Amino acid sequence: MISGRIALGVEYDGSDFRGWQTQQPGVRTVQTCLEAALSRVADHPVSVICAGRTDAGVHALEQVVHFETWAQRRERSWVLGANVNLPPDVAVRWAHPVEADFHARFSAMARHYRYRIMVQRARSPLRRDRAVWVHEPLDRARMQLAAAALVGEHDFSSFRAVACQAKSPVRRIHYLELSEQDDLLTIRVGANGFLHHMVRNIAGVLIAIGRGDAPVDWTRELLEVRDRTLAGVTAPPQGLYFVRADYPSRFDLPQLETASPLPESTAD
Amino acid sequence: MISGRIALGVEYDGSDFRGWQTQQPGVRTVQTCLEAALSRVADHPVSVICAGRTDAGVHALEQVVHFETWAQRRERSWVLGANVNLPPDVAVRWAHPVEADFHARFSAMARHYRYRIMVQRARSPLRRDRAVWVHEPLDRARMQLAAAALVGEHDFSSFRAVACQAKSPVRRIHYLELSEQDDLLTIRVGANGFLHHMVRNIAGVLIAIGRGDAPVDWTRELLEVRDRTLAGVTAPPQGLYFVRADYPSRFDLPQLETASPLPESTAD
Repeated sequence: MISGRIALGVEYDGSDFRGWQTQQPGVRTVQTCLEAALSRVADHPVSVICAGRTDAGVHALEQVVHFETWAQRRERSWVLGANVNLPPDVAVRWAHPVEADFHARFSAMARHYRYRIMVQRARSPLRRDRAVWVHEPLDRARMQLAAAALVGEHDFSSFRAVACQAKSPVRRIHYLELSEQDDLLTIRVGANGFLHHMVRNIAGVLIAIGRGDAPVDWTRELLEVRDRTLAGVTAPPQGLYFVRADYPSRFDLPQLETASPLPESTAD
Repeated sequence: MISGRIALGVEYDGSDFRGWQTQQPGVRTVQTCLEAALSRVADHPVSVICAGRTDAGVHALEQVVHFETWAQRRERSWVLGANVNLPPDVAVRWAHPVEADFHARFSAMARHYRYRIMVQRARSPLRRDRAVWVHEPLDRARMQLAAAALVGEHDFSSFRAVACQAKSPVRRIHYLELSEQDDLLTIRVGANGFLHHMVRNIAGVLIAIGRGDAPVDWTRELLEVRDRTLAGVTAPPQGLYFVRADYPSRFDLPQLETASPLPESTAD
């Protein structure tokens, strides 16, 4: 039988998952749920590989995965079949057959994340698992200046988790910007890759600078000292979204016709 | 001791509540949770009255309530005190002392609701309790035309729940509009008051018309026949948000400095 490779776009609410990666039995992870659902559709055991592993509580709008299968299914059948077998907090958005050299992790040229901060005096029940709550005012101009220093290729040792297993601490940040809509502040970041906890560590540092707890040039200093122990708090997971990954156009992956379901504020 | 009256703005995620109103013991409702929290802060039993009771699964961005108390507390203390005693899915956004003739229900001149529809081919885990999912395309122009027929003062008998206890079925709809942001469609409606299930019944009818399952002038016909049994399905609760109520300016209620945390889509 001929084996084929399928790519999927996967959305999940990370709140009740212990992250992406399969751990010991009984631990609820996205990978475990997804492999169980796909194995039912394929009628054989399926293993998936993703573009960017996420931690417990972290969401994904369009995580990209690939898997091998002998099953012949239409794209729509993979989507529908997986979704009826998946729990409510994870769903397949699209499926697409890809060439054998496609790899969700190694073919990705860039990854994009968002980190959401709600700046308001009282906590918000409707956004409690969708953004981090900061009740002090944040100085956006200071945060923007501090963020700009991180753009480009740098050694991000000060922003990686102690447990990070990446060989090199060097990454290239393509953009790191703040956008604001009413009381929601979003950190938008894209890079060729990210170290473990890198976005949450950047968010933690930018929030401290926005509060006035640290100087604007702290980001630049942290790049220089290359010491994680000096960089302060890791921002909580519920504000973080894996948005998408970019792949060479020859793989012809679908574009989501829908926009990202980030929890937005609206003056309306 | 002098008794005073306090108004509150309350946000809640209705997903895990059996609606607003206190029922038999052991049933989790917003009113029960709020009264328990306020009674702790006031140090005496507190009863609250709200602007618009909501059903199980329905959310509120700024439900307005009032209660009587002998306790002397600052506005900030009511907010903080209530919030530490409330579960994560409900929070007080503001507190404000009001005159004795303020009544959250009877002083309200208008009420505003939103109904959220996500139009996309696959279900969305991140919005699953925040909007209703419709996977067929909806014709917005047809829905807008049909909605326009409901604006003004009408007998809304065809749009009220069988269990509705209101004396009169006549209400005045001030506006009923559709707004669209990417794959999210929002029905915005304001009226002097609403019958039981009225917004969800209007949403159900408009969705059927948008799908092409019913003619555009169905809304007009339903107003004329005044028969609930002819009006079709009640749209699910998770798309519905109580947004706010309007009161005479002499009560000087706070304006939320934050915009509403409706789950928005964004092309970003």
